[in-house]
Amino acid sequence: MKHILGIIFLINSLIVVAQPQRRPAISSPDVHADRSITFRYYSLTAQRVYVSGEFLNAPVKMNKDTSGVWSVTVPPVQPDIYPYSFWVDSVQMADPNNTYIFANERFKRSIVEIPGDKPLIHSLQNVPHGKISYRYYKSSALGSTRQLLVYTPPGYDANGKIKYPVLYLIHGGSDTEETWTKVGRANLIADNLIAQGKAKPMIIVMPYGNVRPKPMADFTKDVVNDIIPFVEENYSVIKESKGRAVAGFSVGGGQTLNIGLTNPDKFAYVCSYAPYTATDEFNNNFTNWSPDANRMNKQLKLFTISVGTEDFLYESVKKNIAMFKEKKLNVEPLIVSGGHTWMNCKLFLATSLQQLFKD
Amino acid sequence: MKHILGIIFLINSLIVVAQPQRRPAISSPDVHADRSITFRYYSLTAQRVYVSGEFLNAPVKMNKDTSGVWSVTVPPVQPDIYPYSFWVDSVQMADPNNTYIFANERFKRSIVEIPGDKPLIHSLQNVPHGKISYRYYKSSALGSTRQLLVYTPPGYDANGKIKYPVLYLIHGGSDTEETWTKVGRANLIADNLIAQGKAKPMIIVMPYGNVRPKPMADFTKDVVNDIIPFVEENYSVIKESKGRAVAGFSVGGGQTLNIGLTNPDKFAYVCSYAPYTATDEFNNNFTNWSPDANRMNKQLKLFTISVGTEDFLYESVKKNIAMFKEKKLNVEPLIVSGGHTWMNCKLFLATSLQQLFKD
Repeated sequence: MKHILGIIFLINSLIVVAQPQRRPAISSPDVHADRSITFRYYSLTAQRVYVSGEFLNAPVKMNKDTSGVWSVTVPPVQPDIYPYSFWVDSVQMADPNNTYIFANERFKRSIVEIPGDKPLIHSLQNVPHGKISYRYYKSSALGSTRQLLVYTPPGYDANGKIKYPVLYLIHGGSDTEETWTKVGRANLIADNLIAQGKAKPMIIVMPYGNVRPKPMADFTKDVVNDIIPFVEENYSVIKESKGRAVAGFSVGGGQTLNIGLTNPDKFAYVCSYAPYTATDEFNNNFTNWSPDANRMNKQLKLFTISVGTEDFLYESVKKNIAMFKEKKLNVEPLIVSGGHTWMNCKLFLATSLQQLFKD
Repeated sequence: MKHILGIIFLINSLIVVAQPQRRPAISSPDVHADRSITFRYYSLTAQRVYVSGEFLNAPVKMNKDTSGVWSVTVPPVQPDIYPYSFWVDSVQMADPNNTYIFANERFKRSIVEIPGDKPLIHSLQNVPHGKISYRYYKSSALGSTRQLLVYTPPGYDANGKIKYPVLYLIHGGSDTEETWTKVGRANLIADNLIAQGKAKPMIIVMPYGNVRPKPMADFTKDVVNDIIPFVEENYSVIKESKGRAVAGFSVGGGQTLNIGLTNPDKFAYVCSYAPYTATDEFNNNFTNWSPDANRMNKQLKLFTISVGTEDFLYESVKKNIAMFKEKKLNVEPLIVSGGHTWMNCKLFLATSLQQLFKD
């Protein structure tokens, strides 16, 4: 069957490029029982192939056998979900033999999942599952119809009496509206924490934060003027600040600060993960900013900034935290190990979900 | 900003592979006003690069400039959405500079969209939009928790009085449960036809049809024993055969025949697109098959088989049609030009959506 399908698709793809020899069937990545991983890549002509991944301190050279298969086995790694890519003669690419692709507009990375002895917080477990809906909304701020994703928790009933709180969750630079679910597993983390009674059932809205070539501040308008009204018209939600949180990673972490701190009447929870803040919008908002700290500290039930000590933005984020402290805001730092990674993103989100909407 | 982000991600990706020269910024694909398309690919070491696409009769050679950028411009093509890929020294890959990737587990293809002067049936138009939900369900037939996609039409209300008909729509071999929306634009085609009054508002369920290493017949069990009950428990739907249709493409077109024709009490509409039928399940079901044709023709409000004359399965599909005719079934063939492509898939689906649930 597989062989026949192969022939079908060969014909279908109109492949008449001469193939000097048949490409060997290869499997990549292979995660072994001891959590070591073998990566493989096929090329007869490449001169150098490396695997680069967030479980490695530096790219690892792959070695070619006589059939043109490059491979390497890396030592056991901690259970988690990791992005990785191949560097073939200085060109980055996703692993051609891995279906699981990192949702990103710039970098071509694949994903490898290392299971734990026990299920991890992002694992598909035998608990009730919410659903993710792909929706279109009209953005007056941006003058276009855009897509966003909405997680509704298990048992959600659009016509029910329960009004749910809403977390607005923003991806990183060059990510897409799918990255928080496909890489960050936000839906499964929420399912698991809700099932354990550790998180309140909530709605999670994941917009697309890239508004280029428009200025970044237009995304803040989009969230406040278009996305919140869309959500409040279409879902059974709390329409007060105590029922709204905003969180985001990297560029989205910077957007979170812009959106949340300039609208403390709208968001009682602001969770910024490894924020990238070297932007015009951030400078315009917070250089020479003189907030009414007493008032804001009452409005904000939670204002947290999270970062890893190996994050290349660590020093910058420490300055952000110091700046907000200097303005007398009750910012709660969460400093962990690790870098500017989606492994840390999942940790930050899992932490926030247990803090939100508890008052 | 872009430059700074580039640096950020360079650091983030732990890129220490020596780069003999900076990779030039390239854009691919570029769709020009006259609908010609320029493709570009960067490699200093590749010996041959071709672009292969479903708008081409044969792969086209790309030419390298002194900076290592390979490119070619192909003549204007008919407005549509086309899969394409690069062949680099006999290795197929998606276009590294194109975000829009064909959802498939085997082939690495990208997508290029050529807009028309007027919106096409799959274009995002200014009409009410349904939504796509990603759901988990438990499959007793397969012993696992699986994902499926559910399109609900504009205005759908889970607790409303309207009971909707349901189309079960199956992807092709090595596609995924996302291929019908991400490549086939089933949701936008439905949105547009519903807005034009040409299709009845309906729910479209898109399961994952690949059950390997289990036998294909287990997918038929999964649909009948698990998916239909899941849908009927969670959605406001008609629970009779007149409210159920099954359709699918290629391997999914074969599955459609298996699922629909062995369960005519459950499905009044069976729409098979370019079916691949060289399978054990098909042989077991239809070799020496003696249906009660009179009864089945009354049960089936529509039984159609569609195929393009350039489809590599055309001769096989003609034999399928002849076989069902010989059994006295009222099969309605739809023969069009074109090959085994998702361009034809969209056409077949748009045709079916205007035929379903009209009685």
